[in-house]
Amino acid sequence: MPVLTITQAEHVVAAALERANTSPENAARVARALVAAEADGLKGHGLSRVPTYAAQAKAGKVDGRATPTATRPRPGVLAVDAAHGFAYPALAIVADELPEIARAQGVAAAAIRRSHHCGAAGHPVEALAQAGLVALLFANTPAAIAPWGGSVPVFGTNPIAFACPMPAGRAPIVVDLSLSKVARGNILAAKQKGEPIPEGWALDANGNPTTDAEAALKGTMLPLGDAKGTALALMVELLAAGITGANYAAEASSFLDAEGPPPGTGQLILALDPVALGGEASLMRVSALAAMIEGQDGARLPGMRRLALREKARAEGLTVADATMAAIEAV
Amino acid sequence: MPVLTITQAEHVVAAALERANTSPENAARVARALVAAEADGLKGHGLSRVPTYAAQAKAGKVDGRATPTATRPRPGVLAVDAAHGFAYPALAIVADELPEIARAQGVAAAAIRRSHHCGAAGHPVEALAQAGLVALLFANTPAAIAPWGGSVPVFGTNPIAFACPMPAGRAPIVVDLSLSKVARGNILAAKQKGEPIPEGWALDANGNPTTDAEAALKGTMLPLGDAKGTALALMVELLAAGITGANYAAEASSFLDAEGPPPGTGQLILALDPVALGGEASLMRVSALAAMIEGQDGARLPGMRRLALREKARAEGLTVADATMAAIEAV
Repeated sequence: MPVLTITQAEHVVAAALERANTSPENAARVARALVAAEADGLKGHGLSRVPTYAAQAKAGKVDGRATPTATRPRPGVLAVDAAHGFAYPALAIVADELPEIARAQGVAAAAIRRSHHCGAAGHPVEALAQAGLVALLFANTPAAIAPWGGSVPVFGTNPIAFACPMPAGRAPIVVDLSLSKVARGNILAAKQKGEPIPEGWALDANGNPTTDAEAALKGTMLPLGDAKGTALALMVELLAAGITGANYAAEASSFLDAEGPPPGTGQLILALDPVALGGEASLMRVSALAAMIEGQDGARLPGMRRLALREKARAEGLTVADATMAAIEAV
Repeated sequence: MPVLTITQAEHVVAAALERANTSPENAARVARALVAAEADGLKGHGLSRVPTYAAQAKAGKVDGRATPTATRPRPGVLAVDAAHGFAYPALAIVADELPEIARAQGVAAAAIRRSHHCGAAGHPVEALAQAGLVALLFANTPAAIAPWGGSVPVFGTNPIAFACPMPAGRAPIVVDLSLSKVARGNILAAKQKGEPIPEGWALDANGNPTTDAEAALKGTMLPLGDAKGTALALMVELLAAGITGANYAAEASSFLDAEGPPPGTGQLILALDPVALGGEASLMRVSALAAMIEGQDGARLPGMRRLALREKARAEGLTVADATMAAIEAV
């Protein structure tokens, strides 16, 4: 299996996307995001996406040449139109412009509409935390979860991400979770092995609990935390799409194939200046909470595994499966 | 059992608090909040709190005569010092001042420190939604949940609340959930009945799963959604306390007894102007999502049961248990 440096992997991915009707600037941004996810061990948001992204750009389902635009309808708000391009160029505007707004206003919101798969949801908030801000991201994704008691999917797996800076040069604390109990990939894997799935992962198309992987794939995913998880998914749907002008999960086409109109999903990113809220002592307080967690045997801060994998990838390069490499080169 | 109108119940509660060294203005605010929770069927945040609130005010653990103060360190931020009084007078400042800030800035944050039990977390966000804003509330509470893999509680049950206005005179959508899998009251009830608790509710003091209610009460609560729930509890701890200057869960004394120093917990409230973010169509879009949910057999929007109970309480009054009434009158 080929081993690529981060830079080599970015070049390979960007070249594939440029062959798929994507502008060099956009291709570079998408490549950086996918390779960063791959390096963090988040393979579902990494190099495996290149062939489907490229197919969507070729078909025009995602506009690889789109230039996102931003307006400031209020002093604290950045409204970003991703123009049915990839999400990453729109997220780059947020990374560039939101820190200054948040520092001036104390809190700022970026609302992205006509967007696409936002990838590893922890990365945009981590970037804001590296700029000294506490950040939240809410994204909606194509429909997968039914309302509690219902059977028709209305919510995506709708990730919530959060990041908070740490003092003394330590990496930010990053939380990144989707609201389904397990990732859909686990059900696909069970189906391929011909195995049943545990109760509590999914419902069949009639809204009944199922342990049959095939029936689960035709039905809906269950959220974490039962009815509470569905309520959180509704919250994210309203924050990421309802108030940003994006498509709801149930209106969005798939992120995974080249069929249909653009998904047009949304992301809402909030950034807070911790010094404005809690004074200069804020970051030392974050450090104090981290110490209470790290002082316990068996406990650790979230995101530590990702950071270790990232360091390893930087030092030793990325090992890319032959099939993945072939699919990227075949674009 | 006595049946009281809402107004009568507010008077009874306020009078009890005034007997417990609480100013008439603060007593009236606390009474309104507790009676509103009781009317919504949220008995854990309702009249059952009066005796413990009064005991804390008598002991000086909560300052019943405190006057909260607010500053504006940045255009989008309201920093509120609850001054170790009840939370409700501080939340009243937020309800009064945050809407104007959010409409002008597009987004606004209120950070409350030196605070206390915030009661029904859905109520402050519902009030902001009634003013046309989308609102989020994060509150920390005394330690109950250990970090994933650990055994010492570091996080509270840390509620998240969310509200979003609806068009056409409909009540706002309100989400209000705590991050423990079940409320601690369920474990107390099992202990009283001498029954085991289901697996997945709690850990014992050594961090091992337990079905023994007694051992669970000496241990920690499990979060909803396993490790993801613990990550959300960490997020709320940092938002509500880390960056507001409040005490962490592990530093906070109990909300339920008169022992020790003031709890000094925190709340962070965010308000967004949906029209600033998504244009005039925003509220109609909220309505569209509600229709996708309500159109399914068996599904409903969260909060509908609370609204029905509220209407019933307004029409027919509140039935108060004799023991509760006696405890309030004994203050």
